[in-house]
Amino acid sequence: MHGFIGEFFGTAILILLGAGSGAGVNLKKTYAKGSDWTFVCFAWGMAVTMGVYVAGLLGSQGHLNPAVTIPYAMFGLFPWHDVVPYLLGQFLGAFVGAALVMIEFGAHFKETKSDEGNSVGIFATAPAIKSPLFNFLSETIATFAFVFILLNLGDFTTGLKPFIVGMLIFVIGAGLGTTTGFAINPARDWAPRFAYTILPVPNKGSANWGYAWVPMFGPLLGGIIATAVEVAVK
Amino acid sequence: MHGFIGEFFGTAILILLGAGSGAGVNLKKTYAKGSDWTFVCFAWGMAVTMGVYVAGLLGSQGHLNPAVTIPYAMFGLFPWHDVVPYLLGQFLGAFVGAALVMIEFGAHFKETKSDEGNSVGIFATAPAIKSPLFNFLSETIATFAFVFILLNLGDFTTGLKPFIVGMLIFVIGAGLGTTTGFAINPARDWAPRFAYTILPVPNKGSANWGYAWVPMFGPLLGGIIATAVEVAVK
Amino acid sequence: MHGFIGEFFGTAILILLGAGSGAGVNLKKTYAKGSDWTFVCFAWGMAVTMGVYVAGLLGSQGHLNPAVTIPYAMFGLFPWHDVVPYLLGQFLGAFVGAALVMIEFGAHFKETKSDEGNSVGIFATAPAIKSPLFNFLSETIATFAFVFILLNLGDFTTGLKPFIVGMLIFVIGAGLGTTTGFAINPARDWAPRFAYTILPVPNKGSANWGYAWVPMFGPLLGGIIATAVEVAVK
Amino acid sequence: MHGFIGEFFGTAILILLGAGSGAGVNLKKTYAKGSDWTFVCFAWGMAVTMGVYVAGLLGSQGHLNPAVTIPYAMFGLFPWHDVVPYLLGQFLGAFVGAALVMIEFGAHFKETKSDEGNSVGIFATAPAIKSPLFNFLSETIATFAFVFILLNLGDFTTGLKPFIVGMLIFVIGAGLGTTTGFAINPARDWAPRFAYTILPVPNKGSANWGYAWVPMFGPLLGGIIATAVEVAVK
Repeated sequence: MHGFIGEFFGTAILILLGAGSGAGVNLKKTYAKGSDWTFVCFAWGMAVTMGVYVAGLLGSQGHLNPAVTIPYAMFGLFPWHDVVPYLLGQFLGAFVGAALVMIEFGAHFKETKSDEGNSVGIFATAPAIKSPLFNFLSETIATFAFVFILLNLGDFTTGLKPFIVGMLIFVIGAGLGTTTGFAINPARDWAPRFAYTILPVPNKGSANWGYAWVPMFGPLLGGIIATAVEVAVK
Repeated sequence: MHGFIGEFFGTAILILLGAGSGAGVNLKKTYAKGSDWTFVCFAWGMAVTMGVYVAGLLGSQGHLNPAVTIPYAMFGLFPWHDVVPYLLGQFLGAFVGAALVMIEFGAHFKETKSDEGNSVGIFATAPAIKSPLFNFLSETIATFAFVFILLNLGDFTTGLKPFIVGMLIFVIGAGLGTTTGFAINPARDWAPRFAYTILPVPNKGSANWGYAWVPMFGPLLGGIIATAVEVAVK
Repeated sequence: MHGFIGEFFGTAILILLGAGSGAGVNLKKTYAKGSDWTFVCFAWGMAVTMGVYVAGLLGSQGHLNPAVTIPYAMFGLFPWHDVVPYLLGQFLGAFVGAALVMIEFGAHFKETKSDEGNSVGIFATAPAIKSPLFNFLSETIATFAFVFILLNLGDFTTGLKPFIVGMLIFVIGAGLGTTTGFAINPARDWAPRFAYTILPVPNKGSANWGYAWVPMFGPLLGGIIATAVEVAVK
Repeated sequence: MHGFIGEFFGTAILILLGAGSGAGVNLKKTYAKGSDWTFVCFAWGMAVTMGVYVAGLLGSQGHLNPAVTIPYAMFGLFPWHDVVPYLLGQFLGAFVGAALVMIEFGAHFKETKSDEGNSVGIFATAPAIKSPLFNFLSETIATFAFVFILLNLGDFTTGLKPFIVGMLIFVIGAGLGTTTGFAINPARDWAPRFAYTILPVPNKGSANWGYAWVPMFGPLLGGIIATAVEVAVK
């Protein structure tokens, strides 16, 4: 299970802080209700920064994202035998992070009806305009940019590089996340969506699994293209 | 009194700048009246950054927080004989920082009535929804995340690491601080609350000591769990 | 074609993320519609940061900007024989980045009429007050400040310096970009403007080429003055 | 004139970018009209960061501020024979920076009357509530905090430390600048105020010299106390 611990705790921190900011923006009576997109992008950015620090110190490469792990393995940048523990850590960690958000915001979930912000959008992504083709292209392009830049940061778990990864998430969100909410990571979308589906959240709305293929396959395709291009040009 | 000077000045700076931002958001006629949660999180984050720099150069480890010092001592990461000077420095420093905010904003306190923003919320925390159980859980989870990540940053007083600690505070506030206002630090809450209670602030409102057990014991429990988990997994 | 690859990919990333943020601010129904100037400045700043990282790792000096490349060559800070591949990479990369934004935001372009935000302002700059003389002076001064400071950052493609370059773009935008929208870079303005002109964007408005001489010659003059002053005082 | 060049260009950059942001917030029709305090604090913070980089590379210590230079000299941290060239560079640089802002925003000054935002507040500070005693105390406390923290950052002109100085300015503004607009620097206030007084700005309002003693003597006193305390405790 090499790397499992790091990916598990790192992704749990990422989702705890990131989905926590989503709860703050959406649920009634929080101190950040209705915050703007700058807030959302900074919060998710720094959530990733902290997840990478934790993962790095606990012995993983800090991917926290199957759309990094799988393409890296496909192109020889990561050993295949570590893929399963990495993915397990990512999905389980994201699930636990989402569950903790449900406790942290328990009083607010109780006070917020499903049409008032108590939606799966706290935990998973949804498109601003529903359009399967363009939504898929948006996630593909955003993840292409994310992974391509990540590949040009060098080892990103040490020194202050995790901060730069966080600012990368910030600008992916600011530049390319305003169409679909920037999943750019299947684990970040599916595991919290699954947690919202099966855990007893008061007043909860639909988990919208009909859209979930987009944040699964768009990011994977984007990550594959990015890694292929990087390998080709370097 | 090893470490007292560093913790005293560091925590004084932290509260002077952090509670100062709270005064700016809440008191009438300030240039930041009504600022958003992004402002609050950045201000407190950078307040901690500067407190850590000051504490580090004046010879302490830059905890500035009993929910760091006590759990670290319990799990052998910090010597017990330094706990008392650290705690004294933290509480006294926070008190002095709060007192300076009262002078800095003297003209604004005079113009703001207790129902217009002249409240203990400038100095201490209050829940967005009053719910003893969930408020306690919120502070516990937020402090768990804070201390757990802090333990994975390595020595955080040198180089640019104090900036990362500040961004950690930012994202704890953005992700997990929108329920209770993220005390995550008993000294940061109790000492300024005490200062607001006993010092002659014009027009002041209630100090709300009935809530104060939450920002005392939630952070301590969260810090203990975080340190225990870290020690177990490393 | 030394440096072409780095400048091409770096500028493509810069425009993909930067013009993407412009699309988010302007097009209907995006999650960042109507965002404030802080958002714009941070997004463009971090877009440049990421472009510089990519360019640096792919073997260029990370100029991404003819108003850097040409003045540097004029004053002996950059070899003339690399100027053509650099400029080609910058203009072609910016064109490709803009084209990707059109795909990423396809559904939103379709829903936004030309008088509702579907304007060349997503891709290129426009003055807040139309005044040829002052618009030209604004771009000249802003680019003077940008290039002069850049010359005092040392090698800016390694370590965390690309982040500082991004914050430099942020503050140029915040301090000097509120008059003309801070082109400060002919490639950043002309190539996306050209893409908006010739590519099939639904509902598109005028490309406003009548203004385009300002973001071409203002930045070049500003860059030349900055390099001349730097060479004189060092 | 040792250090004059660095202080001159560094302070010119500081005021060009900082007062430029003030013009953006205040003058009619700019892209940042009415921006919030977060914007103001980030803009001034990064303006200082860039000023310090420039000053440092051009051979000064990057004070850019008489409230740093004079107290440092008084307590033996800076040679007296360099004080005059430093102060000259600071005041002259600030004057030139302010003059450039008048050109950059020429079209906007022409369109903005003195009661619509064309005020000395773009260039110099004004209190939110007029109260000589508290205004003076505010500037003293804010500058005390600024200089005291600065003294604990070590050499702040190299590496990424200028960024930390910028974030220090950010948090001084966020925490302690909402009462008087954080001059914390006599040159930053007086030289642009003087430029607004004597240069032909269209539609200009009063330069409010009656208040100018506060941003002169408050910062100096705060800087002296900070240096005295630092020397005493280290």
